[in-house]
Amino acid sequence: MKELELIAELRSLLATNDPRIVRGLGDDAAIVRARGYAVTSVDTMVEGVHFHSTQLSAPEIGQRALAGALSDLAAMGVDCDPAGRDGAGAQAYLALGLPGGYELEQARALIAGAGELARRLGVTIAGGDVTAAPALVVSFTVVGWADDPGLLVGRDGARDGDLVGVTGSLGDSAAGLAVIEGRAEHLDSELASALRTRYAKPLPRLAAGRALALAGVNAMLDISDGLATDAEHLARASGVAIELDLAALPLARGVSEVAALLRQNPALLAARGGEDYELCFCASPAGRQALEAALAAASPDTAITWIGEVGGGGPVGARFRDLAGSDSGLAGYEHTF
Amino acid sequence: MKELELIAELRSLLATNDPRIVRGLGDDAAIVRARGYAVTSVDTMVEGVHFHSTQLSAPEIGQRALAGALSDLAAMGVDCDPAGRDGAGAQAYLALGLPGGYELEQARALIAGAGELARRLGVTIAGGDVTAAPALVVSFTVVGWADDPGLLVGRDGARDGDLVGVTGSLGDSAAGLAVIEGRAEHLDSELASALRTRYAKPLPRLAAGRALALAGVNAMLDISDGLATDAEHLARASGVAIELDLAALPLARGVSEVAALLRQNPALLAARGGEDYELCFCASPAGRQALEAALAAASPDTAITWIGEVGGGGPVGARFRDLAGSDSGLAGYEHTF
Repeated sequence: MKELELIAELRSLLATNDPRIVRGLGDDAAIVRARGYAVTSVDTMVEGVHFHSTQLSAPEIGQRALAGALSDLAAMGVDCDPAGRDGAGAQAYLALGLPGGYELEQARALIAGAGELARRLGVTIAGGDVTAAPALVVSFTVVGWADDPGLLVGRDGARDGDLVGVTGSLGDSAAGLAVIEGRAEHLDSELASALRTRYAKPLPRLAAGRALALAGVNAMLDISDGLATDAEHLARASGVAIELDLAALPLARGVSEVAALLRQNPALLAARGGEDYELCFCASPAGRQALEAALAAASPDTAITWIGEVGGGGPVGARFRDLAGSDSGLAGYEHTF
Repeated sequence: MKELELIAELRSLLATNDPRIVRGLGDDAAIVRARGYAVTSVDTMVEGVHFHSTQLSAPEIGQRALAGALSDLAAMGVDCDPAGRDGAGAQAYLALGLPGGYELEQARALIAGAGELARRLGVTIAGGDVTAAPALVVSFTVVGWADDPGLLVGRDGARDGDLVGVTGSLGDSAAGLAVIEGRAEHLDSELASALRTRYAKPLPRLAAGRALALAGVNAMLDISDGLATDAEHLARASGVAIELDLAALPLARGVSEVAALLRQNPALLAARGGEDYELCFCASPAGRQALEAALAAASPDTAITWIGEVGGGGPVGARFRDLAGSDSGLAGYEHTF
């Protein structure tokens, strides 16, 4: 396949009948009908830094990069559903760097993987750029829309007394990577496959993020660097102290088994493991039941676990109150946390 | 400088009082008040592919990457001027990949260079992403706004009988690169410096592009790959034959001298040299005088040169009618054209 063939094929691969797209691929720029406010985020994944091509298929690499970018929109509470309240859908723009010798068929498969996820989520890949690069670079800029920016949620609104919650389960992706890298041998094959999928094919929590935003959470972000690091980000942005309970972290099936094989504390694996793309949020205790009901209605498969509180008089930052320096892994951990 | 220091400094470096930016750097996503239509383009420059760090300063690398991205908005005729007709300004989002050992002071200088150009053009750098990478990667996604998409110009509207024009002069950037690479020694130092600047600090033709769009050009694109290649892109997108006059191409002072030192035909250097970031456009002959007057009013320093016509009965594509296969450089040339 030649480069011009690739570009021609992309136009059919990513074709859309979305009436908001006035001009899509193939010109100097895309033209998209706007709504009141644009919500924009950039996320880049680089071979050897964020993934290894030997560990993931090309479609998985494309899908994972798009999911990582869309996860930021989920964390703002953007409604990306074309049939949703704002009805504006979302667009993605791809900057793809291909190393010498990278097969264009593989590039096609990578983009097709991203395109398949985009279609499933109502997102249109509306433009992009393909260049030579010394390693595979997959960068997505994603744009969602909101009529009322007051319904979006930043990292900086946490208040003393808030509860801290997370969606889904933590550590799955880190455990999945251990499986892929052969560091967790003799694990039940079904468990291993499920954990691998959580690493290779993460899904952005778009519906849950939107429901949590509408339910009035005060602050939210997505867990891309690991709960420990991301909770610290949220605490600093809000200027608050966050106290978390390590014992409360939700672990998926298999994470404890992998942690045992790695001789690690499973809760620490969950606290440190990045790329879960779950949401961490702070909400007033008074709204807890309404929030749980709203999430159950909008995203029935998404569990909530309450893992800590804001306040308690400590310095600005996030810490685990049940981690008293006894864990052997603590030193390296505190370095990033 | 540590990474957190860099990020903290970026917030002050790129601080904006633009009231359209509801949320800028530092959250999961930026929130920007929209206008009717978003016009979005992505442009990526990679060390060793699009530039060499030994040849350009860090601020030049940042500025050049942003200019390349904004040139695509110029080619659509987007009004990026916050004080312009649409009054919507434009935003840029940066995905920056830093190789191991790259000094964070250099990264700061690169971003400051882009930020300085952005400020000068009324553009806000509203978000981005910094990651590790095997080489310096600078990718900008730029977003401009339009109230009336009918006033924007694609590549696909050229019609038989149109005149083909270009702004400014061609080949300056290629000649400047030859100067930088020491392939054009003994050139007058003032000329050398001017050509180097055209390579290192290109300026997107935003005002000219807007004026040409309002004057009703039928098709337009920016010259990033070289006139020969880009005219071919325009011809194919429009489904027309374009005939150009090599002898008509506008050459800046010094380009002929550099071409002589390189033992090349100066007009071929101008036709093939990329990264001029001038505009190539097609317009009805009937509107020629009005178009020239409109451009002179909006962008007095921007020359227009008419270099060919659309039509003539040839196959779809672009060709030089005064190039009859006699030039020794033709073979390689036709390969890209």
